[in-house]
Amino acid sequence: MKKVVLAPLALLAIAAAQAQEPAATPPTPAEVIEAASAEDWRPIAPETLLVMTLGDGAQVFLELASDFAPVHVENIRKLARAHWYDGISVNRVQDNYVVQWGDPAEEEADRKPLPEGIVAQPPAEYSFAFPQNPSLSVRQGISPTSYAAADLYIDGWPVGGGALRISDRDVGVAIEPTASLVHCYGMVGVGRGDNPDTGTGAELYTVIGHAPRHLDRNIALVGRIVEGIEHLSSLPRGTGPLGFYEDPAQRVPIESVRLASELPEGERPQFEVMRTDTETFRRYVMARANRTGWFVRPAGAVDVCNVNLPIRRAAVD
Amino acid sequence: MKKVVLAPLALLAIAAAQAQEPAATPPTPAEVIEAASAEDWRPIAPETLLVMTLGDGAQVFLELASDFAPVHVENIRKLARAHWYDGISVNRVQDNYVVQWGDPAEEEADRKPLPEGIVAQPPAEYSFAFPQNPSLSVRQGISPTSYAAADLYIDGWPVGGGALRISDRDVGVAIEPTASLVHCYGMVGVGRGDNPDTGTGAELYTVIGHAPRHLDRNIALVGRIVEGIEHLSSLPRGTGPLGFYEDPAQRVPIESVRLASELPEGERPQFEVMRTDTETFRRYVMARANRTGWFVRPAGAVDVCNVNLPIRRAAVD
Repeated sequence: MKKVVLAPLALLAIAAAQAQEPAATPPTPAEVIEAASAEDWRPIAPETLLVMTLGDGAQVFLELASDFAPVHVENIRKLARAHWYDGISVNRVQDNYVVQWGDPAEEEADRKPLPEGIVAQPPAEYSFAFPQNPSLSVRQGISPTSYAAADLYIDGWPVGGGALRISDRDVGVAIEPTASLVHCYGMVGVGRGDNPDTGTGAELYTVIGHAPRHLDRNIALVGRIVEGIEHLSSLPRGTGPLGFYEDPAQRVPIESVRLASELPEGERPQFEVMRTDTETFRRYVMARANRTGWFVRPAGAVDVCNVNLPIRRAAVD
Repeated sequence: MKKVVLAPLALLAIAAAQAQEPAATPPTPAEVIEAASAEDWRPIAPETLLVMTLGDGAQVFLELASDFAPVHVENIRKLARAHWYDGISVNRVQDNYVVQWGDPAEEEADRKPLPEGIVAQPPAEYSFAFPQNPSLSVRQGISPTSYAAADLYIDGWPVGGGALRISDRDVGVAIEPTASLVHCYGMVGVGRGDNPDTGTGAELYTVIGHAPRHLDRNIALVGRIVEGIEHLSSLPRGTGPLGFYEDPAQRVPIESVRLASELPEGERPQFEVMRTDTETFRRYVMARANRTGWFVRPAGAVDVCNVNLPIRRAAVD
């Protein structure tokens, strides 16, 4: 995890900033986005963007979290470059949980061989040491903009700094010393077997329900869907155990998966993600936490998975 | 809210119980359900169960939260008894948010008249005074089994006791003095206009994504779907603003909505909900918070919307 850039802990800093906020009606999330400047956005690099085309032509766009699970992500890039994903299928749709795609063959021996260079047993890139900020007291860890303690955004990604655990009931609470990406709606992970190091990246899933945070720290999260998740989340639910399709005819074919960097330059989809180390993002989170208009009672807080980080198509010159 | 039964604060009591827990491998959630006795379940009364039949014959079953929003729920019962819902449609499917059904007519004047006796402007049954338990200190409010402070189950329903708010940064945090039902996946609410008291129950919605907790305390939650939500959550997403279907032909017809009490006795579906004021429920929550087997790192906590309260078809004699 040495490559992870620890941006300022935007969410944790909000308590201080809030105290200086004027009492005027807060802006709406849309107004904050509207007022954002070009510097408030970062592009998704073409080698970090996957384009998955389903059998019916619908497309799903996926940003890879290169810095958080580098070995898994590099495997996925190799699988995409080898066109290994072409012709696999969506095999599992479990309501309020996940959509999963991969080689549909049930027996290991019947599966497509993996391309050369794939790390067969990647390290457990499931969590990383939480920044040991001495000023991060328990109270500061309880962000007023989050329903959960120590949830935040790091470098544009939702991170769980750890649920509060009772360590010593007479002394107080302890914050879990590791952090991990959070299984928010639309996050993408690498399926694995019972042994922790068995997920190569050939089997992927995305969350289509309430964040199943019991999976955090237990499996490698490698990215998120930035557009087109509705083509997966609206698929018929599987009726077999764990939502697997019982009839092979129900499987949804995947025509191709390509890195945007492999597409001709004029055909590359271009997306921008709102940066999370900015004053604009702080204002956006505050706006999400303090909704106005139709709302009669603003929450004063927002779950890390309800921040709904703004992601948009980039204007093409 | 005088009818609300405040069951023991099961979740909040877990910290104490946990300290006495033996160190043995905790049971799985399935094992706790398996070991539950008949007394650990309560039936859903026929006058509290709605059966919604879609145009294709698929059925969705809905339990009403009579004690939390009694005026709204009584309106819904009257609408069902008058067969008012028959022939309306699902008009809105917004990804990671809600499915909404009601009279599809866009102009108020074109809508079906409501049956007699409907309270046109129900009170704002959006929240209720939080039990002022003097032993509920801030630290106890942080349940080790929840990612959110002061979330709990009351009488079988998920309740948000309030996000922690910074009241005075030098003194500590304050707990919101009101509580409300939580917008977990599958919870059902009453659509309303811009004015708070404009939701009669003729327009209903259910959550099909990550709990949109900014809606808590802002709108009346009246129940939850106990079976068949996949018939709604897998519908094609609407492409109009807020996920409304743009083409009337996309609307999904609702054939009928009936109270189970209006069906012939032999045809009434029968469900049981796990009681939440029991040792069994406490063990179930602990099992959800401390998953074993495939998991390498149990969370030690579970979000109130990830408890997944067990609900089952009752064995018919």
